[in-house]
Amino acid sequence: MPAPASNPRPGTGHPSADSVRPLRIGSPTGADAPEWDIEADVVVVGYGIAGACAAIEAARAGAEVVILERAGGWGGAAALAGGFIYMGGGTGLQRELGFDDDVENMRAFLTAAMGPGADRAKIDAYCEGSVAHYDWLVDAGVRFKSAFYGEPGWEPPADDGLMYTGGENAAPFNAVAEPAPRGHVPQMSAKKAGEQSAGLMLMTPLSERITELGVRSEYDVTTRRLVVSAGDDGDRVVGVLGTRFGRELSVRARRGVVLAAGSFTYNDAMMRAHVPLLAGRPGSAVEQHDGRAIRMGQAVGADLTHMDAAEVAIHCDPQMMVRGILVNGRGQRFVTEDTYPGRIGQEMALHQGNQAYLILDERAYEEAGTTVSATPFLRFRPKWVGETVAEVEAEMGLPGGALQATVELYNRHAARGEDPMFGKNAQWLRPIEGNIAVIDLRGRTGGFALGGLRTDPDSRVLHVDGDPVPGLFAAGRCTSGIAAWGYASGASLGDGSYFGRRAGISAAAS
Amino acid sequence: MPAPASNPRPGTGHPSADSVRPLRIGSPTGADAPEWDIEADVVVVGYGIAGACAAIEAARAGAEVVILERAGGWGGAAALAGGFIYMGGGTGLQRELGFDDDVENMRAFLTAAMGPGADRAKIDAYCEGSVAHYDWLVDAGVRFKSAFYGEPGWEPPADDGLMYTGGENAAPFNAVAEPAPRGHVPQMSAKKAGEQSAGLMLMTPLSERITELGVRSEYDVTTRRLVVSAGDDGDRVVGVLGTRFGRELSVRARRGVVLAAGSFTYNDAMMRAHVPLLAGRPGSAVEQHDGRAIRMGQAVGADLTHMDAAEVAIHCDPQMMVRGILVNGRGQRFVTEDTYPGRIGQEMALHQGNQAYLILDERAYEEAGTTVSATPFLRFRPKWVGETVAEVEAEMGLPGGALQATVELYNRHAARGEDPMFGKNAQWLRPIEGNIAVIDLRGRTGGFALGGLRTDPDSRVLHVDGDPVPGLFAAGRCTSGIAAWGYASGASLGDGSYFGRRAGISAAAS
Repeated sequence: MPAPASNPRPGTGHPSADSVRPLRIGSPTGADAPEWDIEADVVVVGYGIAGACAAIEAARAGAEVVILERAGGWGGAAALAGGFIYMGGGTGLQRELGFDDDVENMRAFLTAAMGPGADRAKIDAYCEGSVAHYDWLVDAGVRFKSAFYGEPGWEPPADDGLMYTGGENAAPFNAVAEPAPRGHVPQMSAKKAGEQSAGLMLMTPLSERITELGVRSEYDVTTRRLVVSAGDDGDRVVGVLGTRFGRELSVRARRGVVLAAGSFTYNDAMMRAHVPLLAGRPGSAVEQHDGRAIRMGQAVGADLTHMDAAEVAIHCDPQMMVRGILVNGRGQRFVTEDTYPGRIGQEMALHQGNQAYLILDERAYEEAGTTVSATPFLRFRPKWVGETVAEVEAEMGLPGGALQATVELYNRHAARGEDPMFGKNAQWLRPIEGNIAVIDLRGRTGGFALGGLRTDPDSRVLHVDGDPVPGLFAAGRCTSGIAAWGYASGASLGDGSYFGRRAGISAAAS
Repeated sequence: MPAPASNPRPGTGHPSADSVRPLRIGSPTGADAPEWDIEADVVVVGYGIAGACAAIEAARAGAEVVILERAGGWGGAAALAGGFIYMGGGTGLQRELGFDDDVENMRAFLTAAMGPGADRAKIDAYCEGSVAHYDWLVDAGVRFKSAFYGEPGWEPPADDGLMYTGGENAAPFNAVAEPAPRGHVPQMSAKKAGEQSAGLMLMTPLSERITELGVRSEYDVTTRRLVVSAGDDGDRVVGVLGTRFGRELSVRARRGVVLAAGSFTYNDAMMRAHVPLLAGRPGSAVEQHDGRAIRMGQAVGADLTHMDAAEVAIHCDPQMMVRGILVNGRGQRFVTEDTYPGRIGQEMALHQGNQAYLILDERAYEEAGTTVSATPFLRFRPKWVGETVAEVEAEMGLPGGALQATVELYNRHAARGEDPMFGKNAQWLRPIEGNIAVIDLRGRTGGFALGGLRTDPDSRVLHVDGDPVPGLFAAGRCTSGIAAWGYASGASLGDGSYFGRRAGISAAAS
C-alpha cells in the first residue's frame, strides 16, 4: 500500500481563511478578546423569518439586539416565499371560516405527516402554541384575508388567507385526523402585478416592529465564526466574527447568539453528503443558504438531525395531476394524485428514482387547462398522445401491458367511485377514456434541505453530549424543525417564526 | 408565549459525567496534561476489523501501538459477521476461479450500486488497491478456499470462498458492468458445528500478526473523550481518556488516534435522528456500536456524511424469493427478486414502507425448500394459501384486482422468458400457476447504520472546515465508507480493512 497521498491542504490545523472554527478566548473582556466593533445582549445572525421573530421577542424582553444580515436588506428566503405559515388548533382565521380544529387534531396530523422520526417534543410545543402564535402575528401587523381557497394547487391564485397545504384532506391523513386547512397566507395587495409575495407581506410588518423596537440591523455582513469563551463553566458562545466588504467585524453577544441563517440547499458538498437525490436541483431557497451557520454550530460541537430530509416541489399544475393518474417509470401508480403536491414530489424524488408520468384523457387535460384555478406556468404540453393507452404505452417505451394494467385497474374502481389502491377522493375519480395525453415529469422536481442543527423546543442548540451549548440558540432552516421525512407548505415559515420567537426569548433570558 | 421551560440538564456547560467533550490541554507534557497511564505513538480505539488493520500497518511502519477495546477480547462485530470482504479487480481468487474483472469494471459497478452520493475518491482508491489488498490479507494469514458458490443466498452454506454479494449479476447492474463475484469469504474449518464464522477466521490471523508485532492490547476499556492540545497550529488530538471498571484511564498518542469503534446502530437517539425507518430494528451489529466514537469526533468539529444510509437485511431465504414475485403493500412488484437480498431489503424498508409479500406457486415453494441451497431458518411458512391468485388477494385484503393484474402481467412476459418490468434473469422466470402461497414479510427487515465521520481516502478525519483534524484518523463503520444509499455484503469488512490500513499508515506518519 502506498504512503498517504500528499494533501493540497496540509493538515497543520491552521484554519483556512474561510474557516468556521470558533475563536477561543479567555473572557469577553480579557486581553485575548477582540476589540469588539459592536456589542449587544443578543446577536441574531440572519434577517429572515426566524431572525426577525427572535429579534422582536428578545427586544421585547428588554435585551439590546443587533441583527447581522448577509444580504443588502432584510427578508431572506421568507420574503420571496409563497408565504404560507402552518398554524392551527383553532386559530382566529380557522374559526372565522368555519373550520373546526384543536390541538390534538393538529398534533395527530403533524405526527403522521411529518414523520417518521419527527421531533415529538417540538410538534407538541408547536401545536400547543399555535393559536397564540397566530394572534401574535396578527398583533404584529400581519393581515390574513378571511377567505378560504379549496381548490387543488400550490398557492391560492389571489389573496385568500387559508388553504390545505399538507394533504390533510387526502389519503392517508384524512383517516388519521379530521381534515382542517392550516396554511395561513398573509394578504397581498398587488400579487397579480408580480410585485409582491405573501412572504413579503409577512416580513414587512415584522421589520416595522423591529425598527420600532430600536433593534440595530447591520447588512452586508457575512458571519464566519463564533467566538467562545473558555470559562470555568465550559465553552460559552460570547460573540461572532464576520466580514463586511472584506473588512473583519467582531460582534459581542453579552447574553447569546441566535443562528437563523437558513438551510444548506446551496452548498453542493453538503447536499451531496446528505441529500444526494436533490443535489444540483435547489428549489425555493436563496443562494445565501450555504449551510455556513450549520457548520459554525458543528464547529463548537453542536449535533445534527435529519440531514437527509427535504422539501420537494414537483413542477406540474396540481389541477392537472388531480385529474389524471401519476405513474412511475414502470407505469405503476405510487401516490394519490389529490394530495399535497409536495408529498407527490417527495414520493417521486426520494422513492421513485425521480421518474414520473402524468396520464390524462383529453377531457381531463382540457378541463385542467380551462379551470380558473389553473396555474399556467406549471401547465406543460403532453410529450406523448394517442388514441389508446396501448398506443402511448408503446410510444413511451414502457413494459408491454404495464400501463394498460394500471389504467384498467384504476378505471374499474373509479367507475364505482373508489380508489382502494391509494384512497383518492371520489370527487376526482373518473375512468380514463378516449384520447390519452402523457405529461413527462421525469426530473421535474427540486427542493430544499430540511435538516440542520439539533435544537430543543426552547431553541437552544444542543451539543452532541445532549446539553445545550451555552449562549447559542438557533431557529429556522439552519435547524431541524417539526418536519423529518414529510412536509407541509408553511412548516418552514411556521416553525421558523415559532421557534425563532423561542430563540429570542431564550437568548434574552440567558 | 411562556418563558422557556425549565431544563432538566441546565445549560451550564459543565460536561455531564458521560461527556464526549474533549479535554483541552496546553501541551501533552505541560502542567495541565493528565498523568498518562499509557503512552504510545498510535492509539487505536476498537479491536474489530478496522482497528486490527490499522494496528498492523502502524506497527509495521515502526510505530509503538496500543489498542483500546471495550469488550473483554478482540473481534468486534467483524468476528461475528458472515465474513464477506468485498474485493475485486482481478484478485488471485477471482483469477483462480476463472472470473475476469478489472479496476474499471469494479469501479463501474460500485459507482452505480453504492450511490447516489457515494464517495468517488474512496471508491477509486478502494478499487485501485483491491488486488493488493487481497494479497495483503492472504499474506497476513487469511485463507480463502478456491471454490465459487453460484446460488442465490445470503452466504455460502459451506466454506466456498467466492460469491456474488451485491447484485452484480442481476438487473440493473448487469447492464452497467460485466458481472464478477467479489464477495471473498475466509475459509472456516467447522462452520457446520456453529462454532465458527468466516468473520472469526478473518480476525484470528490478524490478531496473531498483531501479537507478533508487539502491539499492546488493553481490553474492557471504554473510550470516552479525546484529549486535544491547543498548540500554535490549532487543536491537535494527542490522546484519549477512557474508563476501565469505573477507573479512569488516560492514554497519550504521540502521533495519532485511530477511531475504529463501529457504528451507531445501537444508539436509539441517533437512529431516530438519522435512520428513523430502522430505529428499533438493529441487525448484524454488536451492542458496543453505540456511536460514541462518532460523537467524540463531532465534539472536536469533525463532519458527518450520509448518516441516513443503512444496510438492510430481509429475513427471507433468497432461494424462496428468487422463485416467486415480491410485491409491496398494494400488490405491486418493486424490485427484481434475483438481486442481492440486501438490495431487496433496502428497497422494502426505505421505499415501500417496510411492506412486502412473497407470492409463490406450490411448485416454487416446494422447490425452494428442497434445494440443497435452502436456508432453513429463513424459510417461513405461508400466511395465506389459495387455489387462485384472486383467492389469496381477497384473503390478504389487497385492493381487488391489484395482485391479479401484477401476476397476469408477470406471467405473460415470463412465459416468453422476459421481465421488462425489472429485468429478472430468464433462469428464474416461470409463470406463477396453480395453488398459491403467500409469505408475509411485513416488518421482516433489520439493519445497521452506514453513515458516520467524514474521512478522506487516507482515513484522516475531516473537520467541517474541510481540513483534516490533526492527529485524528478513523475507519470502519464509525465512518462513512464506500457505500451511500446502496450496499453490497462485504463492503463493511472491505472498507473497514482497507481504510483501516490507511488509517494506521497515516497515523504512524503523522
